[in-house]
Amino acid sequence: MSASLQLTGGTVIDGTGQRPREATIVVEDGRIVTVGSGDGTPRSSGDAQTLDVRGKFVIPGLMDANVHLILDTTAEVLLLHRDRYADLAIEAAQLALRGGVTTLFDTWGPPGVLAQVRDSINSGKVTGSRVYLAGNIIGLDGPLTDDFNPPGTVLSRKTIEVINAEWECGVGGNLQWQTAETVGDRVCQYIAETGVDFVKYAASGHGSPRCLLFSEAAQRAIVEEAHRAGLTAQAHTSTPESLRMEITAGADLLQHPDITGIVPLPADTFATIVERRLPCAAIMTTKAHHEWLRRTADEPWATVLRVQDANNDRLVAAGARMLLTTDAGVVAPTSYSHPQFKSVHGEVVDSHLELGSSHVNWLRSAIERGMDPMTALQSATRYIAEAYQVADEVGTLEAEKRADILVLDSDPLADPLNYARIRYVIKDGTIVDRDRLPERPVLTSASAFGA
Amino acid sequence: MSASLQLTGGTVIDGTGQRPREATIVVEDGRIVTVGSGDGTPRSSGDAQTLDVRGKFVIPGLMDANVHLILDTTAEVLLLHRDRYADLAIEAAQLALRGGVTTLFDTWGPPGVLAQVRDSINSGKVTGSRVYLAGNIIGLDGPLTDDFNPPGTVLSRKTIEVINAEWECGVGGNLQWQTAETVGDRVCQYIAETGVDFVKYAASGHGSPRCLLFSEAAQRAIVEEAHRAGLTAQAHTSTPESLRMEITAGADLLQHPDITGIVPLPADTFATIVERRLPCAAIMTTKAHHEWLRRTADEPWATVLRVQDANNDRLVAAGARMLLTTDAGVVAPTSYSHPQFKSVHGEVVDSHLELGSSHVNWLRSAIERGMDPMTALQSATRYIAEAYQVADEVGTLEAEKRADILVLDSDPLADPLNYARIRYVIKDGTIVDRDRLPERPVLTSASAFGA
Amino acid sequence: MSASLQLTGGTVIDGTGQRPREATIVVEDGRIVTVGSGDGTPRSSGDAQTLDVRGKFVIPGLMDANVHLILDTTAEVLLLHRDRYADLAIEAAQLALRGGVTTLFDTWGPPGVLAQVRDSINSGKVTGSRVYLAGNIIGLDGPLTDDFNPPGTVLSRKTIEVINAEWECGVGGNLQWQTAETVGDRVCQYIAETGVDFVKYAASGHGSPRCLLFSEAAQRAIVEEAHRAGLTAQAHTSTPESLRMEITAGADLLQHPDITGIVPLPADTFATIVERRLPCAAIMTTKAHHEWLRRTADEPWATVLRVQDANNDRLVAAGARMLLTTDAGVVAPTSYSHPQFKSVHGEVVDSHLELGSSHVNWLRSAIERGMDPMTALQSATRYIAEAYQVADEVGTLEAEKRADILVLDSDPLADPLNYARIRYVIKDGTIVDRDRLPERPVLTSASAFGA
Amino acid sequence: MSASLQLTGGTVIDGTGQRPREATIVVEDGRIVTVGSGDGTPRSSGDAQTLDVRGKFVIPGLMDANVHLILDTTAEVLLLHRDRYADLAIEAAQLALRGGVTTLFDTWGPPGVLAQVRDSINSGKVTGSRVYLAGNIIGLDGPLTDDFNPPGTVLSRKTIEVINAEWECGVGGNLQWQTAETVGDRVCQYIAETGVDFVKYAASGHGSPRCLLFSEAAQRAIVEEAHRAGLTAQAHTSTPESLRMEITAGADLLQHPDITGIVPLPADTFATIVERRLPCAAIMTTKAHHEWLRRTADEPWATVLRVQDANNDRLVAAGARMLLTTDAGVVAPTSYSHPQFKSVHGEVVDSHLELGSSHVNWLRSAIERGMDPMTALQSATRYIAEAYQVADEVGTLEAEKRADILVLDSDPLADPLNYARIRYVIKDGTIVDRDRLPERPVLTSASAFGA
Repeated sequence: MSASLQLTGGTVIDGTGQRPREATIVVEDGRIVTVGSGDGTPRSSGDAQTLDVRGKFVIPGLMDANVHLILDTTAEVLLLHRDRYADLAIEAAQLALRGGVTTLFDTWGPPGVLAQVRDSINSGKVTGSRVYLAGNIIGLDGPLTDDFNPPGTVLSRKTIEVINAEWECGVGGNLQWQTAETVGDRVCQYIAETGVDFVKYAASGHGSPRCLLFSEAAQRAIVEEAHRAGLTAQAHTSTPESLRMEITAGADLLQHPDITGIVPLPADTFATIVERRLPCAAIMTTKAHHEWLRRTADEPWATVLRVQDANNDRLVAAGARMLLTTDAGVVAPTSYSHPQFKSVHGEVVDSHLELGSSHVNWLRSAIERGMDPMTALQSATRYIAEAYQVADEVGTLEAEKRADILVLDSDPLADPLNYARIRYVIKDGTIVDRDRLPERPVLTSASAFGA
Repeated sequence: MSASLQLTGGTVIDGTGQRPREATIVVEDGRIVTVGSGDGTPRSSGDAQTLDVRGKFVIPGLMDANVHLILDTTAEVLLLHRDRYADLAIEAAQLALRGGVTTLFDTWGPPGVLAQVRDSINSGKVTGSRVYLAGNIIGLDGPLTDDFNPPGTVLSRKTIEVINAEWECGVGGNLQWQTAETVGDRVCQYIAETGVDFVKYAASGHGSPRCLLFSEAAQRAIVEEAHRAGLTAQAHTSTPESLRMEITAGADLLQHPDITGIVPLPADTFATIVERRLPCAAIMTTKAHHEWLRRTADEPWATVLRVQDANNDRLVAAGARMLLTTDAGVVAPTSYSHPQFKSVHGEVVDSHLELGSSHVNWLRSAIERGMDPMTALQSATRYIAEAYQVADEVGTLEAEKRADILVLDSDPLADPLNYARIRYVIKDGTIVDRDRLPERPVLTSASAFGA
Repeated sequence: MSASLQLTGGTVIDGTGQRPREATIVVEDGRIVTVGSGDGTPRSSGDAQTLDVRGKFVIPGLMDANVHLILDTTAEVLLLHRDRYADLAIEAAQLALRGGVTTLFDTWGPPGVLAQVRDSINSGKVTGSRVYLAGNIIGLDGPLTDDFNPPGTVLSRKTIEVINAEWECGVGGNLQWQTAETVGDRVCQYIAETGVDFVKYAASGHGSPRCLLFSEAAQRAIVEEAHRAGLTAQAHTSTPESLRMEITAGADLLQHPDITGIVPLPADTFATIVERRLPCAAIMTTKAHHEWLRRTADEPWATVLRVQDANNDRLVAAGARMLLTTDAGVVAPTSYSHPQFKSVHGEVVDSHLELGSSHVNWLRSAIERGMDPMTALQSATRYIAEAYQVADEVGTLEAEKRADILVLDSDPLADPLNYARIRYVIKDGTIVDRDRLPERPVLTSASAFGA
Repeated sequence: MSASLQLTGGTVIDGTGQRPREATIVVEDGRIVTVGSGDGTPRSSGDAQTLDVRGKFVIPGLMDANVHLILDTTAEVLLLHRDRYADLAIEAAQLALRGGVTTLFDTWGPPGVLAQVRDSINSGKVTGSRVYLAGNIIGLDGPLTDDFNPPGTVLSRKTIEVINAEWECGVGGNLQWQTAETVGDRVCQYIAETGVDFVKYAASGHGSPRCLLFSEAAQRAIVEEAHRAGLTAQAHTSTPESLRMEITAGADLLQHPDITGIVPLPADTFATIVERRLPCAAIMTTKAHHEWLRRTADEPWATVLRVQDANNDRLVAAGARMLLTTDAGVVAPTSYSHPQFKSVHGEVVDSHLELGSSHVNWLRSAIERGMDPMTALQSATRYIAEAYQVADEVGTLEAEKRADILVLDSDPLADPLNYARIRYVIKDGTIVDRDRLPERPVLTSASAFGA
């Protein structure tokens, strides 16, 4: 797909934790061949393109442990763009790539459409961030339900049913009626039919965050089925008890263990997380964002936010294994005038929801909380790759890895805002033409409905 | 547009009230040249097409005094087909034409799209029933409001606003705040900007049917502006008092004067309607439909329906000037599973809402109530043309009228079901290829969402 | 009921517009015998009580043209106090009296209970402000409807029905279905059955303020029935057109003509009001209250408030006949945490809803807008008495009038806050023991539910 | 409290399973002294009252394993009777006693009021069925929440909060946020503070029946705290998995194990229930009731009902230990017109909710399903006493037991309807004056609101 490429003269921060150094990176056929300590002299290869990146900073392409290529599942977005769900997902993946995030883990969406988009992108047919996907969150109902966007009496039952089924794929909320054994069987079938890359289930409810959705036995059955299929497993959790159960069940990665409702992370679970270096996909936000949120939050949500913020401070201070995690996607212009936003006055401060830019706010938040800059960089690259068990492919700048490379104008270890000062985004060894992205804007089009 | 055409040997019921007779109809350039009492011998014109319609019954193309080319304005239909409103309207107009209804009066819809569809059809570029339109009902808010489909908290304010504005065009519910003088000015501006063919305003509320929307002074101002622009005026009304006010204000045609809430049509208003032969666009339904409706109706709606039924019996018995009126359109398959339909068990009986077929139920209902068959036929043709002041163009089979002709296999005066036994539909002198309609089905497509 | 009483040495402002003067007021059997210009020497009557009010200001008891003895009609108040509606009304009347408001016009409430309370108070059996009442607002539905407190799906239909009927008394919203003639008949019957003191009808809707509830003919019928029974008539109105119609129909007093929605009071109606000195019961609020309200008002309500404020400025400037009008009553402690108050942050500023104190805010507002202090005093006394046609009984300190007298420590013409510096409240010639009021507190009890 | 009493000549069915026999029962000081096989000759005791019950059937007073003395917790009942909750409970206990149910287990209600009523009744100060109570269902929110009667936007937050707190007593839904250890601590505190007689917790949700409310660890903690305090423990459950977890956690009694949602009782759990003779408090209803319910049930509830019915058939057939269980109480007249009842047409058939009579429907249902009549009688007496560990006090007619005795005119083993043919109800050795009950009717008063 791509000819050879050399990046010479740049300061390489390779993601392994090794100190920044001047090095030449040689890429062939989409993979890194060498990361040389040499003098920056380009190899004599006739057809190789050489980028002189002196004064620049060369780091692994960034990764995000939790995004949603189809984030905005309000009824109006789903209906207005009924025939263009793939376009919505591609738009999102291209916005991420433009922002330097070369690998995404989509943790909730319709498996059919997303698998198709993943295949198009990962096979190189379509430009976009590399995609790994979970499909439905096992145990949750589809988007037009009380779990997400309650449809009230506005939509017809048939419409609701048809759309929700595209998310649920047989592992929606009705799985809660089943025994652990049947739950395992259904998950096995779901994995086989959808071809998802990892498994996410709901340990806590989404619409009703205090509830447990599965017993320990059922959780174990889910995790075992994932492992049997060679996939990692993770759980949506929002209470101390569901978090503890998830760990006991053997989850490989913890989604937002920082969200523990109105009760702080209990000491024993906290200790387990730190000691076992369990990967924490925590949606850390800047202090400014946190203040902005709390200005309009009613109880008990104000308390929930305060507890989450304190949990993150504790986790970072204790050196827990944190992963860059935004929950980001693309939001339609109309959605900002949705009734649920009615109490929000003025602009969102340091949003964590905008794919392509919000990851920088996570890095800022990590630094604010005292994380070492090199650890922060690894939280956005290598640690995610390891947690998702794809470290042989991506996450560091090492020979034989995919050539997903970010070239920055300024030192990201000096200031996290420098992650946004992008010179080049290279994916699979090819320089991305960022100005062309997104190629076919839908929600971000200047003529989008409501724009 | 069309070459000449002759219909020979048929029994002509020309809509003037004259008795059925055998006659030859000669058509040229889309208009009737002669309705001869002759022997059925075709004229010798070389290029004339001749239809031998011996044993058939030839009547004017049917008309409907109240339809909605975009009837289904549930949020999901409006959003799913956001870019195809014109297609929805064309589909509806083609279904009507296929059913023998060659002229439609659209009494509520988005003026911009409908005017464009009207122009396409009436100029012959697109196949469909001839369209006359009112656009918005002056004084009512758009489709996604309490007047029609309350949007609850599901849709964003921006989306609601954008869509409603396409119906309201400056003459929505906020007109109620204005003085009579300002109301007149706004209506004048609305007529000029939208190019509507007639004016309809709300004397009663739609979402709140007991309320009055305009004072007598404001109603007069609206009617005067319509007349000044050479248009007829009519009002939506649902109470005895609003009906009386509408008549006083000078309305040319009464929309559903049969709907008077829980109180029967008062004697004095009834007498006025009958004596002045005011055209009554009454949504008469069959007794079977009426029974079906009442089975699930709560109070006060059960009473409202009973009163309406009795009003229609009285109007027909007194020889009031009735017009075929269905309120029909096309309903999406999904909409039958809408929460508002939840108490409806089983099939709709003798629906009055299906464009292309429900007009036959109106005719059945008229006969059931004792209307003379010839009067019924005129209620579906000439009387509508006269009420809407387009009788020089359509409504009867007479020389110089447009050649909108329906050829039936059986005698419609013998049985109203025979209006559905169609041999030919001829519009503007051209035989309609009914099997091709609708050309591009949307809501009636076999693959429509929810079908 | 009361022995004789003399007030000597005070500065009397008698409400007739005459300049303040030192005078002795002699009261016998509850009525004023003389307002002497004398030397303040008490008459020699042996059993007469004499109040030395030197340095004090003596004015007529205040009046309020629009209050609600049962204002808080939230479902919880109506259910919690189901057997104590009379107690609620008495508590309100006593709070008013304690604050110096000796005569109230209750413009909405359940006729049965209120008439009983009126009779108890006006006959002297129970302490409280003198009460005149309208009962239901003709054309509006009861308290647990969309007109006031929509009951949603929380209450049973039977409960809703029973309670609403106690307000509606046959002249609720269903009257809108009727012809003008029938409307008149029903109003006649309502007056006879309930024994109300004046008639109020809804020209505009309450739940739907843009709507008209009655035609001009029906409005005339209502006003005529009131007049035939010797009662004054007034209308609830919220649009320019309903206000104009009400005046045309012959209303004796205009309730909140300052509320004209999003459109300012039209020039011609404004001129009519000023020239004919039509009594305007305008709910004027202080600028501080207005600012407070607008901080949280969404559109179109922010505009409605701005227009109202400007209308009041214009009316006062033009010398329209304004009446003190608060819409006040007693609000339960729980109601401040009702969902409808959710956007209200912090304390209410200069409330107009608290019976017993809010009338002072009206007077402050009048002065703020430039009203002459003497005119303001008359707006709170004589003008109300004249508008309600009870000026032979109350409103001024003149011989033969009822001895409703307020003795203030400071000059009310110097500062409207001085209306709250009360030395004595005298009603029907008897000094009110203000410290005992309310005698049996319900909503204002220290142990009230939610207090 | 009571002098001695003899019942002579009757056929005694003593609840131990022993065959019916003629016997004389001698009662002193409220307890049974002997159940003699003698000749029916009364003892010569001078002051003993002797009842000649020849031809009658003498059985233990009936028991109900699940009732609610305050069942109707609609907002309107709670507000209308705010100061009379104790009266509501006493009315219910008296209706039960009148119907022959001498001992009740109240499994959900406000602990404070109910404990007070229990003490009044059980100490003999007030007449009524013997009461044992659980208070709140641990883990559920109060009555005016989504768990029971969603308050919508009609009630104020303060009112909702005050009322709910009276049920929750610190062990409401927020307990779900806590760790197992903290859950245990809170339950310990709750038992100590309220003085409840047994413990009930929610293994499944009430508002969201598919959800789990507590982990296995937390369930164990709750059961252990109950046992530590000498109380039995039971759980509300509605899924196969929550039922399995409850059994594992050590529950002493299973509340409605027949309700397993859309999935039948799994074979292994079923086997455990049967083999271990776990007491099943199943709300069995007659086939006629079941048919009536299903006529108006939407999915998934129609399926849930069908599964429940089949579960009960299986349990009875397998000889599981069933307990008479009705969930009954007293429903206000108004509540039958509540929106949630809107689809119910006509009369309730064989209600299971009416305290005092519905227990007979349970017995009919048991017989319908093939239960042996003697087993049915024991399900209504001895088995409940044993399950609740009060068999040394009540449940059989044996010496030293409390003299709670039912004398029937006809043989209850011949026809379950005979349980309603009551001659005498004797409680604590005293004949109940059934005609006086309820002494102070509230909801069943002829003048009750809405009656």
